[in-house]
Amino acid sequence: MRAITLFDGELHFNADYAPHHAAVNLVEVKVLTAGICETDLQLKQGYMGFNGVLGHEFVGVAQTGPFTGERVVGEINCACGHCDFCRRDLPRHCENRTVIGILNHDGAFADSLFVPQENLHRVPDHVSTKHAVFTEPVAAACRILEQTNINGDHNVVILGDGRLGNLCAQVISTTRANVLVVGKHEWKLQRLNELGIQTELLAGFQPASTADFVVDCTGSPSGFPLSLQTVKPCGTVILKTTVAAEQPLQLAPVVINEVRIIGSRCGPFAPALKMIADKTIHVESLITAEYPLEQAIQAFRHAEQPDTLKVLLHVSDSV
Amino acid sequence: MRAITLFDGELHFNADYAPHHAAVNLVEVKVLTAGICETDLQLKQGYMGFNGVLGHEFVGVAQTGPFTGERVVGEINCACGHCDFCRRDLPRHCENRTVIGILNHDGAFADSLFVPQENLHRVPDHVSTKHAVFTEPVAAACRILEQTNINGDHNVVILGDGRLGNLCAQVISTTRANVLVVGKHEWKLQRLNELGIQTELLAGFQPASTADFVVDCTGSPSGFPLSLQTVKPCGTVILKTTVAAEQPLQLAPVVINEVRIIGSRCGPFAPALKMIADKTIHVESLITAEYPLEQAIQAFRHAEQPDTLKVLLHVSDSV
Repeated sequence: MRAITLFDGELHFNADYAPHHAAVNLVEVKVLTAGICETDLQLKQGYMGFNGVLGHEFVGVAQTGPFTGERVVGEINCACGHCDFCRRDLPRHCENRTVIGILNHDGAFADSLFVPQENLHRVPDHVSTKHAVFTEPVAAACRILEQTNINGDHNVVILGDGRLGNLCAQVISTTRANVLVVGKHEWKLQRLNELGIQTELLAGFQPASTADFVVDCTGSPSGFPLSLQTVKPCGTVILKTTVAAEQPLQLAPVVINEVRIIGSRCGPFAPALKMIADKTIHVESLITAEYPLEQAIQAFRHAEQPDTLKVLLHVSDSV
Repeated sequence: MRAITLFDGELHFNADYAPHHAAVNLVEVKVLTAGICETDLQLKQGYMGFNGVLGHEFVGVAQTGPFTGERVVGEINCACGHCDFCRRDLPRHCENRTVIGILNHDGAFADSLFVPQENLHRVPDHVSTKHAVFTEPVAAACRILEQTNINGDHNVVILGDGRLGNLCAQVISTTRANVLVVGKHEWKLQRLNELGIQTELLAGFQPASTADFVVDCTGSPSGFPLSLQTVKPCGTVILKTTVAAEQPLQLAPVVINEVRIIGSRCGPFAPALKMIADKTIHVESLITAEYPLEQAIQAFRHAEQPDTLKVLLHVSDSV
């Protein structure tokens, strides 16, 4: 099959890749469309030391199991089901887990990938494939609602106007919190304004220790220090993007101002898919470009530009 | 009056210091005994840029107000009462606050200090002055119980066997949590064993990502990375000591393991004083040495040694 693989930091288009995967309980999913994520760009730069087929945002058609012949999306953490963390109901933190397209598990930039049945969710018929492919990043944004009690009384500042910042802003706005997105790109902020979300250019932003919650979606080492200047005493900073590199940090302000910091990673697919299906979350305007799988290397180059939001890869029109 | 002042990193004994203080609503407290805290040692090294009279752990006798002639202890954050944080019931984070012996407010290593009436708590007659002087650090440990839901189902690892680690271990043990203190000093761990608290030498400690809560009381840059190795996914790290210096840190594990980090500073005096009064908390064995105020500089040198727990300064036997 065709597959985009990463080996030692180099992307390759393989016309005839032999998929390898653990053989038990996995459903073959023939891929329709996949999204390129910030994490993919970081993996390419050596994060996690991943070698194999990239891609963890996807819509495909299940080839076996109860959803045979239907469109599905899939949660990316594949749990063993019997370790200590699985038993304590933390399957996303399973100590033996594979993570699709990220850790020891071939991903979705290929004709097929193999997903545990329990990770699959059926896509409602009226939801387009191009929209459903956003389920994974919307779920990651929904994770914040599981981890906090954000509500209409709160001021929330989101740092970063990229793909994830946009989706976090939309998801958090469903709580009726007062949301402000701070970013570098006027046209990305404009997209948020069109959805009724307040924005401010980073250049003019004055952090004032007043936000109840700050969500760091910058993907940049500057995000954390700015978060600490923006959050109020006893407020909460949610770290949404991984900054792989070590950076010089001072933790004394965390103690003095009694700040809470919450790491936040993958989230629940069911509410995310529902938000996309009922158009609570608008994803159409996030699509910057679409490429066929054969042009994946070009698509990656496009996704690496600062003037993009989401770049999609079309693997197949129908299967 | 006599006072130990810090100016530009140098301690001085002043035989005839003229106290200066805001004149309104402050009660003169004639000091009986004061304790030297890790923060005092850090202030001496330039933390907060404090110049003035040090000392924020004290027992004294109130000279005016409802507690006139009685022994009192005093909360250290002096709030303005009208700023945004005071109005939102966060007086310890008042943006105009002074902090006794730490920020724009002369402290207790002197014959007298001046404390807002609302900060004072009467010491019950049966509690000795030497025990009551621990109210401030015990309150700082009690702050953890306000910020978390630690209970008998939880595994709690406390990193650091010093003064604060010891008190945090005792306070958290009141929840019936399974507490383990990890430290460098056999004799300090022995003190904890005598109170029925489990301990382990740092040299033999294998962090295993299993603790529900980790409390960093190390006062060392190594504490935070070790905390992240010790806490379980979705667990909580409580930062209890300020490390003033910048240090190279990697935050990716916080995101990947969805760790919560809580900065924790000053705490409530009423429950702390009660725990000392009813001997829930044992402080006697923490006292390493006692010095008269005139020998404060020597006392500081003693407190800086790794083989000490609490060093007390006796200012006056009676007033």
